[in-house]
Amino acid sequence: MKVGIVGITGYSGMVLYTLLAQHPKVSQVLLYGSTQETQALSDVIPAFGKNDIMINPLNVENIIQEVDCLFCATPSGVTGKLMLPLIETGFPVIDLSGDFRLREGQLYEDWYHQADRQLPSAECITYALPEFTMNYAPYIANPGCYATATLLGLAPLAQAGILEPGSIITDAKSGVSSAGKNPATHTHFPFINENLWVYRLNQHQHIPEITQQLGEWDEKLQHIQFSTTLLPITRGIMVNTYAKLTQPVTQSILEDIFAQCYAGKTFVRFRGAQLPTIKEVVGSNFCDIGVVWNPTTQIVTIVSVIDNLMKGAAGQAVQNFNLYFGFEETAGLPQFPVFP
Amino acid sequence: MKVGIVGITGYSGMVLYTLLAQHPKVSQVLLYGSTQETQALSDVIPAFGKNDIMINPLNVENIIQEVDCLFCATPSGVTGKLMLPLIETGFPVIDLSGDFRLREGQLYEDWYHQADRQLPSAECITYALPEFTMNYAPYIANPGCYATATLLGLAPLAQAGILEPGSIITDAKSGVSSAGKNPATHTHFPFINENLWVYRLNQHQHIPEITQQLGEWDEKLQHIQFSTTLLPITRGIMVNTYAKLTQPVTQSILEDIFAQCYAGKTFVRFRGAQLPTIKEVVGSNFCDIGVVWNPTTQIVTIVSVIDNLMKGAAGQAVQNFNLYFGFEETAGLPQFPVFP
Amino acid sequence: MKVGIVGITGYSGMVLYTLLAQHPKVSQVLLYGSTQETQALSDVIPAFGKNDIMINPLNVENIIQEVDCLFCATPSGVTGKLMLPLIETGFPVIDLSGDFRLREGQLYEDWYHQADRQLPSAECITYALPEFTMNYAPYIANPGCYATATLLGLAPLAQAGILEPGSIITDAKSGVSSAGKNPATHTHFPFINENLWVYRLNQHQHIPEITQQLGEWDEKLQHIQFSTTLLPITRGIMVNTYAKLTQPVTQSILEDIFAQCYAGKTFVRFRGAQLPTIKEVVGSNFCDIGVVWNPTTQIVTIVSVIDNLMKGAAGQAVQNFNLYFGFEETAGLPQFPVFP
Amino acid sequence: MKVGIVGITGYSGMVLYTLLAQHPKVSQVLLYGSTQETQALSDVIPAFGKNDIMINPLNVENIIQEVDCLFCATPSGVTGKLMLPLIETGFPVIDLSGDFRLREGQLYEDWYHQADRQLPSAECITYALPEFTMNYAPYIANPGCYATATLLGLAPLAQAGILEPGSIITDAKSGVSSAGKNPATHTHFPFINENLWVYRLNQHQHIPEITQQLGEWDEKLQHIQFSTTLLPITRGIMVNTYAKLTQPVTQSILEDIFAQCYAGKTFVRFRGAQLPTIKEVVGSNFCDIGVVWNPTTQIVTIVSVIDNLMKGAAGQAVQNFNLYFGFEETAGLPQFPVFP
Repeated sequence: MKVGIVGITGYSGMVLYTLLAQHPKVSQVLLYGSTQETQALSDVIPAFGKNDIMINPLNVENIIQEVDCLFCATPSGVTGKLMLPLIETGFPVIDLSGDFRLREGQLYEDWYHQADRQLPSAECITYALPEFTMNYAPYIANPGCYATATLLGLAPLAQAGILEPGSIITDAKSGVSSAGKNPATHTHFPFINENLWVYRLNQHQHIPEITQQLGEWDEKLQHIQFSTTLLPITRGIMVNTYAKLTQPVTQSILEDIFAQCYAGKTFVRFRGAQLPTIKEVVGSNFCDIGVVWNPTTQIVTIVSVIDNLMKGAAGQAVQNFNLYFGFEETAGLPQFPVFP
Repeated sequence: MKVGIVGITGYSGMVLYTLLAQHPKVSQVLLYGSTQETQALSDVIPAFGKNDIMINPLNVENIIQEVDCLFCATPSGVTGKLMLPLIETGFPVIDLSGDFRLREGQLYEDWYHQADRQLPSAECITYALPEFTMNYAPYIANPGCYATATLLGLAPLAQAGILEPGSIITDAKSGVSSAGKNPATHTHFPFINENLWVYRLNQHQHIPEITQQLGEWDEKLQHIQFSTTLLPITRGIMVNTYAKLTQPVTQSILEDIFAQCYAGKTFVRFRGAQLPTIKEVVGSNFCDIGVVWNPTTQIVTIVSVIDNLMKGAAGQAVQNFNLYFGFEETAGLPQFPVFP
Repeated sequence: MKVGIVGITGYSGMVLYTLLAQHPKVSQVLLYGSTQETQALSDVIPAFGKNDIMINPLNVENIIQEVDCLFCATPSGVTGKLMLPLIETGFPVIDLSGDFRLREGQLYEDWYHQADRQLPSAECITYALPEFTMNYAPYIANPGCYATATLLGLAPLAQAGILEPGSIITDAKSGVSSAGKNPATHTHFPFINENLWVYRLNQHQHIPEITQQLGEWDEKLQHIQFSTTLLPITRGIMVNTYAKLTQPVTQSILEDIFAQCYAGKTFVRFRGAQLPTIKEVVGSNFCDIGVVWNPTTQIVTIVSVIDNLMKGAAGQAVQNFNLYFGFEETAGLPQFPVFP
Repeated sequence: MKVGIVGITGYSGMVLYTLLAQHPKVSQVLLYGSTQETQALSDVIPAFGKNDIMINPLNVENIIQEVDCLFCATPSGVTGKLMLPLIETGFPVIDLSGDFRLREGQLYEDWYHQADRQLPSAECITYALPEFTMNYAPYIANPGCYATATLLGLAPLAQAGILEPGSIITDAKSGVSSAGKNPATHTHFPFINENLWVYRLNQHQHIPEITQQLGEWDEKLQHIQFSTTLLPITRGIMVNTYAKLTQPVTQSILEDIFAQCYAGKTFVRFRGAQLPTIKEVVGSNFCDIGVVWNPTTQIVTIVSVIDNLMKGAAGQAVQNFNLYFGFEETAGLPQFPVFP
């Protein structure tokens, strides 16, 4: 198969390229950029070595001719404008951006601060958290990094219907690579090094994506208190979620619920009461989850960790690609984190 | 005045020494160690320069003769055993350790995993969060670092009596210096660098100290869901606290409550809806606090930051020292953080 | 005394303000900015707390009326254009920028890539490495951060005239704060974190300043091989210098040369063969130096460390200020590093 | 093929395991430990996921039966004692430790501070820097991390015979993982974070390994001035080498020498005057090299970077494994760094 990537110059695009270039089912990776100039990959990312691969101008008609599947690792607002022709023809697209994750146009406008997309019919698009996706439409909205870690942490309890509505509080933390490649005040080393920064409190665009999915699992779940903190690390997300339950549990009952939910799910490693650390997953597509019941406060604590550029972006995109095309779910994905 | 320090070789002790050695009301700082050998400070901490200051063996009788006030920057279990003679004679002691923070012996045994102290009568000891301490006994239990940041964040709402019991969830994060100077698996650079580690979940020894104080402010507050995460930074604590309230509020009402509570309190800088970052206080004795009301979830988020070795330990000890002896509250404490 | 600062918004200016605001001989610090608007310090640097201090537009005539001494913490090119009236009237100025460090105009143009300054007569300006400055002109060119660490490391051997010309190789490393406050590709956290970056090899503008001073100590010393590496830390410089000598030495002889050179120099702490680390000086005005002779290779290794914003900028400026005005050399400067 | 690893619990061993477990020519990886107990890999390194792989006690006789090649990722002193039976039978061993790198016993004793090994005849062992190894003995001494980066930087000039003897100065820096997995004072996070530490100056055990190899390339090269600095990063080495040359060159001539030397060498990426950064190779087996001629000082600067656990240890071991057994040189090695 030939695949294309739009947005190689961003962090998610870079990681995606390294995965697809070594993927056993991919014969060639074509690169498309947003400018009219053709650029040499070697000039743009010298770390990827000398080669003769070019980044060609983006032209939707050409893409259909040249590749069998397109990955979009673009900022929000790009695919919403450009990809309608591909969606309408049923061409396989895996979109790492947030443009088609939300079904309701008003939500999109409110949280992304952009005019709504021309949304095709809902059946054309799948919001695909791969652990829980049964049927794929050709256009796949790859979940956001925070949403992935939060939803995988909550899924077992949400699906069991035992989360107390209004009680979910998520304290999420992310490495700086999630803020992208462009230098800014809050990603300047002397600012964020030896520091923590709480940002977009109650305003992060992944919130509606999380509540949309939670609502599908349990319609009583409408809100989530959600905070995001920038960490002085490059890669990795840790999400602590706290919630009350609608029925009495024990540590053992909780562990059973999680273990059953994730039985057979390769990329979620449920670790019982052992709380995972970020480094145990960085460089891999794993989401590690631990859970602890506090009998005193009657509150459950769920800790979930991912690599924001892997399970939170490029790795999950490849996982979705594998499932959509019927390949091994693990094809092209590393078996181990980069450790230590 | 002459003052003594027990425990200069720990991080809190080091910082305490730098403050007291430059304090305008302190003529001499004497150092006491836990071994029988006399050591030269220059050998133990070369970063403090060449000098002829010695660390002498600890002898409680001598201390009473040699100094006017003693600071203990010792591990838990030390002062509980050694300081009873000082307490009984009403000698001024400022204890940075956790040994006399909890009034109930059973709590001490449960959370510190040590046999209970011989507790003198309660009047001899003050648990002194200096912003809210009216009367000082000569023996001052200096609050813990996590407890300080958490309690200062919650105080305005707890004192107003509007926190919903059972709803308080604290997600606290700390730099590695809070784990002390001894190398260990979880403070090994390749472990904690580029990582986060949730530790002692529901078991941190500062929990009972927090609930003891909350209960004094509002007896309905008996529990707190409290998690602690080790950060890949050296100094600083950030505490995110989430809670529901027993009456309707607005952002503006909340800000008024905080502003009134901290009016005239030099070392607490309430910053409204602007959430503080750790670096804005590191190197100083300030606790910066921001607060945000979420009308959708009806949950308040409070973010409080301190330098764990300053407002969380040595700086607060000096603040208590100043207040106890009637000096300027700010004497010997820096006016600014070390920034950037 | 009243003093003024131009350039408070840069890192050196910030640190300078914290020192001068607490300086025992300074009654008031006035701030001047480069724009025509008046700004509130509280808005620009919230970490410095609430206050009513304003940053006023820069007007050289007013400055002479309002303050007794001016500190310039400005980018290169600013003082070269603006300060001539002050220089000509003999008004005391301490210039942290590089504009008047080089005596030869051609060197300035070559290394700073700016048109030469209107250079007043040489007697008006002192390049003042305070450990070796006897007579101060009113206009003081404060040495650069790399130059300070390198020159203090080499001074004892250069003054003794035993450095072999052509043999000096300096491998210097600096924290990111030396690159200033403006976000850029190479100061973006995901770039420089977990990384090292060698920059401006053989082209750093501190090179001619170093050779100018070395040549004064020993005219045979005309060149230096000098590399600069950006470190993933915020503050601090370490300079490793390697050189051959023109006469046989031993470790003991070397240590004697350094010890004699720095006897009585408060801010240089010579540590013999014990090589200093950066953290032992960060937050202080100290330069710590270690030296090791290698009998096999007949090469001396000198390691010198400073805080680039203190001894490398603001601290040294205050030290020069103290010496120029006849205050205690240590006035307003901390006695200890911020440690750990 | 079946392969064995001794020393999986160390950092090099961990990385080696991840490479071999995914190597296309390896059907099974057996693990051997130094204790008599059998341990489950899942318990020792939970980050590698759930599996039923055991770490069995080390028994040299069994190894010969069970595997076709053994990798030793052990501390110095272990293989020198245990591996003689394997060496004598010509069993393929790739030894990541330093025990058989030095040919002269006295050098081993002097630099490793251990009694000399029972050294078999020299023909049994190859010190194998794979870029320059023609003939492999079955026992392969894998070069040290610092030695690899330094030698690859110097090889083109040493082989050309144009390095001026006595002029080579190497300033090498390494991430903390090179200090191993055991917590220690200098790897304690609050010590090395925001710090640099020069250690074992003139005494690092990789020095004789470097001079041994340099002497083979050019017998006039007998010494090297070599310093090692610990960096506040986890993985990666940067080596700056400075030298004078015995004949006049230009930047262009230098680049030609390097380009020719490394033509066709997949894992050395010569980058001309563009100086590489550490992150461009971390996670990969690449050594990136840049070179700059300074016509003023007549000194060449060579900057070489590697991942100390890959090209400096496990990756190079796999590269040697591939070459020894006639596999593709790149088999089982990632094509890209982990970037960003």
